[in-house]
Amino acid sequence: MGEKDISQAVIARLPRYFRYLGELKDEGVERISSQELSTLMQVTASQIRQDFNNFGGFGQQGYGYNVEYLYQEIGKILGLDKEHQLIVVGAGNLGTALCNYANFKRRGFYFAGVFDQNPDLIGKKVGNLFVKPMEEMEDFVKNNTIDIAVLCIPKTSAVNVADKLVKCGVKAFWNFAHCDLNVPKGIVVENVHLSDSLIKLSYNLNENR
Amino acid sequence: MGEKDISQAVIARLPRYFRYLGELKDEGVERISSQELSTLMQVTASQIRQDFNNFGGFGQQGYGYNVEYLYQEIGKILGLDKEHQLIVVGAGNLGTALCNYANFKRRGFYFAGVFDQNPDLIGKKVGNLFVKPMEEMEDFVKNNTIDIAVLCIPKTSAVNVADKLVKCGVKAFWNFAHCDLNVPKGIVVENVHLSDSLIKLSYNLNENR
Repeated sequence: MGEKDISQAVIARLPRYFRYLGELKDEGVERISSQELSTLMQVTASQIRQDFNNFGGFGQQGYGYNVEYLYQEIGKILGLDKEHQLIVVGAGNLGTALCNYANFKRRGFYFAGVFDQNPDLIGKKVGNLFVKPMEEMEDFVKNNTIDIAVLCIPKTSAVNVADKLVKCGVKAFWNFAHCDLNVPKGIVVENVHLSDSLIKLSYNLNENR
Repeated sequence: MGEKDISQAVIARLPRYFRYLGELKDEGVERISSQELSTLMQVTASQIRQDFNNFGGFGQQGYGYNVEYLYQEIGKILGLDKEHQLIVVGAGNLGTALCNYANFKRRGFYFAGVFDQNPDLIGKKVGNLFVKPMEEMEDFVKNNTIDIAVLCIPKTSAVNVADKLVKCGVKAFWNFAHCDLNVPKGIVVENVHLSDSLIKLSYNLNENR
């Protein structure tokens, strides 16, 4: 399907399609035209068709898309037909919030362990897990099949922790630390830089005045 | 300066420049070439020059950029020379994490109030604030000069709360609810859809295998 060549801009839009299709499915909608989807999602119908053409199109023009089929197919493209095991590093408020987010489990993301270096947090219950000390992190990752590490730690320790985790076989990082990780080729990083996001909001707010 | 026409893709990169320049400044670096900045940030020097040319360029080729000047100028473009008053709606783990994030205050973002509908959370200390009931939110926004509302509430209530806040004069939303807000033209929204971000990571992880 040539998915390797698909731009990150298109990839970044897929979860939103998936979200809207999931809602339509839950509402019992069976079929939707690109025009209706366009109105609902406030993107052009041409954008939708172009995005979907990257994956073979999914449906006939004029006839519309089968919501359930499209939902399943986009889910497969996004890897959501597989299960992923995650660990969370950093059991502060943000790490706790992520562990408690029920929606992730529904999508096949299982939080298998949560680690912190703060002795006061060790043993604390977070979601359905108990916080373990950092010293146990590497053995835990080696002994369980951990795909993804979620970094909710300060930037001063994030790069070092990521290095260790790569050596233990972690293939992907969901990075909330306020720095860029310097990982080897083939390791995937998705950054959530909250400060950058708030600053972008500030720009648009000031431009709008 | 024609900043109105600058694409959101360029805007989205500005906070990262600002972050790197801040770090260089803190390290005492006075001058940097686009080539050095390119190596550090792992983007092409041509991209950097193109991005900066949107704002008049900032420096001479061959001579490099003055780090302090560039940092200040990008900060001004981003509106960081102004102060912003925020409220947080939803005092769960995520709302708490954001209220406690010291870095925001350093950038001129002041959390003025935090609201929740859960009676168990009312009066709880979050950062240097006490959680107030939702019933007080609208008067608070009208009586204080609130620029930005941070929505850390479920999608079932986010659209309704946003409508109320727009009526009270809120101009910008930092939206963590798992839905898109339908706000009038001129109101700024920056979404942080955590599920979408994790799903994008899942796609790239599965593509890389």
